[in-house]
Amino acid sequence: MSQIKIAVIVGSLRKESFNDKLAKALEKLFPADFSLSHVRIDDLPLYNQDDDGHPSAQVTRLKSEIKAAQGLLFFTPEYNRSIPGVLKNAIDHASRPYGQSAWDGRPAGVIGASVGPIGTALAQQHLRNILAYLNVPTLGQPEAFIHNKEGLYDANGAIGEASLKFLQSWVDAYVQWVKKHL
Amino acid sequence: MSQIKIAVIVGSLRKESFNDKLAKALEKLFPADFSLSHVRIDDLPLYNQDDDGHPSAQVTRLKSEIKAAQGLLFFTPEYNRSIPGVLKNAIDHASRPYGQSAWDGRPAGVIGASVGPIGTALAQQHLRNILAYLNVPTLGQPEAFIHNKEGLYDANGAIGEASLKFLQSWVDAYVQWVKKHL
Repeated sequence: MSQIKIAVIVGSLRKESFNDKLAKALEKLFPADFSLSHVRIDDLPLYNQDDDGHPSAQVTRLKSEIKAAQGLLFFTPEYNRSIPGVLKNAIDHASRPYGQSAWDGRPAGVIGASVGPIGTALAQQHLRNILAYLNVPTLGQPEAFIHNKEGLYDANGAIGEASLKFLQSWVDAYVQWVKKHL
Repeated sequence: MSQIKIAVIVGSLRKESFNDKLAKALEKLFPADFSLSHVRIDDLPLYNQDDDGHPSAQVTRLKSEIKAAQGLLFFTPEYNRSIPGVLKNAIDHASRPYGQSAWDGRPAGVIGASVGPIGTALAQQHLRNILAYLNVPTLGQPEAFIHNKEGLYDANGAIGEASLKFLQSWVDAYVQWVKKHL
């Protein structure tokens, strides 16, 4: 069975990241023909246009991993009512040089978890603005503003019963969205 | 004469940055009791919440420079219809740890230059969203979406005749805004 490759981009670098935990739990809800792999963004330099002509190995790696993927999956925290600088820095790198963006045309899903009940909603809106410019077709509904509260996971770190139906429906919609844009 | 200290934050790292050039030209339009100094953001690490308890020397420096200022002046490029990751990374650093933000209450101006005629308008809107959350009172009018075209500067790099009246009015409004929030 041919695999559909999804590049997973988690916007938080901390070890116990809520979004990294969500990414790992959500992965188990995907069908067998989807292959998810995490893209590393923690070792990128700060973007400087002067380096466009001689990108670092980390930037070249990032762009080749994005280009090799058939779909994108963004897990974003909300920092100061927007996406983390860390995530935007990765997006900026892979969008450059002008006319050579790695993001172009790859279908995406946007999701995020936080301890607050708005569940990164405002960060996701900024991310959608950015992805629209980058010509990344992004799943509209269902939206997924995940409140990281008790019961979200079971004792094994899998999605708990209370959220399973919704999150499975989200994954199913994302899977269809990616297939539509293959 | 007691000096009013302004921290200047330029969101682009490239040497020939339009926004750095604008910052240097605009500085000459300020009254003598305003003292502008550029805050360095190019050597910051990528923000990781795990480091909140033991910030790097660069982060400590950034926060102390922001705290020592009576006002903030942001010059932002527009990258992919938002602010650069580099700028957001600096904002994230100085906003943490929770409850110890360096930005809190400091009045700000937002301006930006680009080769496109919208002059970073969309980046500035995202920046305003972020600054509102950070409790940074930000000058509303006049807005300053600077189109970096021929005639913006004279032969010496000073603001050219065509834009001088508007940019002086912008600086004057910013100066009054800062004084109101001292």
